Amino acid sequence: MIKTDILIIGAGPTGLFTVFEAGLLKLKCHLIDALPQPGGQLAELYPKKPIYDIPGYPEVKAGELVDNLMEQIKSFQPGFTLGEVAQNIDRQEDDSFIVTTNKGTMHHAKIIAIAGGLGSFEPRKPPIKNLSKFEDLGVQYMIRDPEKFRNKSVVIAGGGDSALDWSIYLADIADEVTLIHRRNEFRGALESVDRVKELKDIGKIKLVTPAEVVDVYGSSNLEGVMVRKNNNPEEDFALAADYFIPLFGLSPKLGPIANWGLEIEKNAIKVDNTLDYQTNIPGIYAIGDVNTYPGKLKLILCGFHEATLMCQSAYQKIYPNKRYVMKYTTVGGVTGFDGSKKEAPKAVVKSID
Amino acid sequence: MIKTDILIIGAGPTGLFTVFEAGLLKLKCHLIDALPQPGGQLAELYPKKPIYDIPGYPEVKAGELVDNLMEQIKSFQPGFTLGEVAQNIDRQEDDSFIVTTNKGTMHHAKIIAIAGGLGSFEPRKPPIKNLSKFEDLGVQYMIRDPEKFRNKSVVIAGGGDSALDWSIYLADIADEVTLIHRRNEFRGALESVDRVKELKDIGKIKLVTPAEVVDVYGSSNLEGVMVRKNNNPEEDFALAADYFIPLFGLSPKLGPIANWGLEIEKNAIKVDNTLDYQTNIPGIYAIGDVNTYPGKLKLILCGFHEATLMCQSAYQKIYPNKRYVMKYTTVGGVTGFDGSKKEAPKAVVKSID
Repeated sequence: MIKTDILIIGAGPTGLFTVFEAGLLKLKCHLIDALPQPGGQLAELYPKKPIYDIPGYPEVKAGELVDNLMEQIKSFQPGFTLGEVAQNIDRQEDDSFIVTTNKGTMHHAKIIAIAGGLGSFEPRKPPIKNLSKFEDLGVQYMIRDPEKFRNKSVVIAGGGDSALDWSIYLADIADEVTLIHRRNEFRGALESVDRVKELKDIGKIKLVTPAEVVDVYGSSNLEGVMVRKNNNPEEDFALAADYFIPLFGLSPKLGPIANWGLEIEKNAIKVDNTLDYQTNIPGIYAIGDVNTYPGKLKLILCGFHEATLMCQSAYQKIYPNKRYVMKYTTVGGVTGFDGSKKEAPKAVVKSID
Repeated sequence: MIKTDILIIGAGPTGLFTVFEAGLLKLKCHLIDALPQPGGQLAELYPKKPIYDIPGYPEVKAGELVDNLMEQIKSFQPGFTLGEVAQNIDRQEDDSFIVTTNKGTMHHAKIIAIAGGLGSFEPRKPPIKNLSKFEDLGVQYMIRDPEKFRNKSVVIAGGGDSALDWSIYLADIADEVTLIHRRNEFRGALESVDRVKELKDIGKIKLVTPAEVVDVYGSSNLEGVMVRKNNNPEEDFALAADYFIPLFGLSPKLGPIANWGLEIEKNAIKVDNTLDYQTNIPGIYAIGDVNTYPGKLKLILCGFHEATLMCQSAYQKIYPNKRYVMKYTTVGGVTGFDGSKKEAPKAVVKSID
C-alpha cells in the first residue's frame, strides 16, 4: 500500500505543480497517471510544440515546461504510479481514501486531488481482427521501454507524428522496422517526414503504403500481421513480426472517475466554489481542465492557481488546529524533503572602514 | 488624452500579464505606475533576488521575470505612463472612465483594471529640515535618469542595497559621490558592500559614517547639505552638493485609489466574486495583491489567473454582442498589434516514395 498525504490523479502540469505547493506546506504527494511518463498531454501529444501563454515564458516547448516542472518539484520527492488508471475509491472510517488502479496498485491518502485534464488518454484501437487477443503478447498501443524492441522485428501502423517518430527512434534499436500507412502521404513535422525517407532510402525502415494491417496471427505470442495493399484483398500478404504497434492517436476519457459519485457537468467535475475547488465529496478536489465552475477557462495557468488554493484547503483539513502562515519563497526559501534548501542570498551587515 | 480599451493601474507582474491576455482578445492596454519603470516591487525592491514559486521556473530572478513578461507582451504594444500616480477617476455618461494622474496626464478607457499590488510605493522621507523645499530642485527620492548626475556632485544617504547600488552606479557618472549613513555597518548584498569599499579606497566614493544629514540649503536650487558626524552637533559641517538623494526605502500606500468609492477591506479592494474579480463599481476590476476575497493568496501566480479571467469579462463588457471562442495559443498562435505572428510550426502532409 502506497501512503501519502495528497494523492494526485493526473500527472499533467496542474498535477505536477500541486506537488510544489503541497511541498511548501510540508505535505507529501503521490501521482497516478494512465500515461507511461509524467506531463500529461504536453509530454504525450505535443512535446515539441510551443505554448505562448505561460506567464513569464514568451515561448516554451510543452516538453520543456514539463521538464522544468519536474525540476521544480524534485526536492519534494513525489511518488509516481504510471501507466495505470485510478479505478476504485473507498472512503475509510477516518475519512481518508484508498484508491486502487486497474492493475491493483493500492494508494492510501487523506486528500484526493483530481487533476485529470480532459481525462485519461486512451489509445484509439483500430478495428483489426484478433487484435485484442495479442495485447501485451506482441501488440501494444504505447511504447514504455524502447529497449524491449532491440534486435526484434517491429511493425508500426499510422501516418502521424507518433508513427513517424517511433519508426525513426526504433530504426536504430530494432532488427527490422516496417511502417505501414493507408495513404502515401504522412502528416507530421517536416523534418520527421524527411528523416523517414532517408532511413527508407538506406534500408533502415521498410515502408508499405498505401496499405493496412487487416489481421494479426500467432500461436500464443504474436508472430506476424496480415497486410492488405492498395485496398485489394488479392494483394494481401503475411509479414512476420515480433511486435505490432498501431499508433492511431489517443482519445481522452473521463474513465472510471465518472463513477465515483462526483457531480459531473459537461464531461467535467463540478466544483461548487472557487475558494478551494472542492467537489461534492469532502476531501476530494478537482483542479485544472477536469473541473468546471462559472467562468472556468481550461488554461494551464488557471490550473496552477487552482492547485495553489486547493493545497491551502488540504492543509487545513489535515491539520485542523494548525494555522499556516504563508511565507514568500523569496523570503523563506524552499526546503526540500531531501534535505536540500534553496534560498535567496542573505544580506550581510558589514562595516566599511 | 490617452485612449485605450483597458487602463491598468500598476505595472507589476499582474498588470503586465494583463496586457498579454487582453491582447489575445484584441484589446489594447495602457499602464500607469508610480515607479519610474515597469515591474513593480520586482523591479524596484528585489530585482536580483530569486523567486521559487513561479510555475515552471525552478528559480527566476525577479528582474528576469519582469524582462520576460515585457518580452511576452511586446507585440501587444502597451502604453506606459510612468512615475505618475493615478489620482482622480470620472465616470462618463457612456460608462467609460477618465483617469487623471497627479501630474495631470489624462487617460480615457472603457475598463479599469487596478493591479496596484500593495499600493503605490512611496519613498520614505527622512525628517530633515527644509527637505520638502528642495524637492525637484536638487532633492530626489528616486533615480529615473542617471545621466542628469553627469559631472555633478551627489550626496546619497542610506545604508541598504539602494544606497549602495546607486553609489556604485553613480561613481562612474557623477563628479563626486558622497555616501552618508548613520552607522558604520551597511546592510546589503556582500558584493555591493565590498564594491563600495573598493571604490572608497580608490577615491571614487567618499564615505561619511556614522553621520546624518540634518539640514539642506541653497538659494533656489539645492547648494549643499549639513552633515552631523557621530551624533554630535559640534562636529556639524557643510558639504556642497548639486543633488541630495535620501534612499530610506519605499513604503506602499493604497493612495488616491482609496477615495474612488471602492469597497476597501484590510487595506485591499474587495471583489465580490471570483468569476471576474470585479469591484463594487461596474467596469472597475481589482486583480493581484491589491484585491481581497475569501481564500485570497497574495501570490504572483494567482494574479496571473485573476488577470486572465478578468480580461474575459472585460471583453464581454466592451463587446456585449460578440461571443468569444477561446483558442489555445499552441493552436491559434499569437498575433501582435505590430503585425507580428508567432505560431507553432505547421504539420506537413507529404508522401514518401
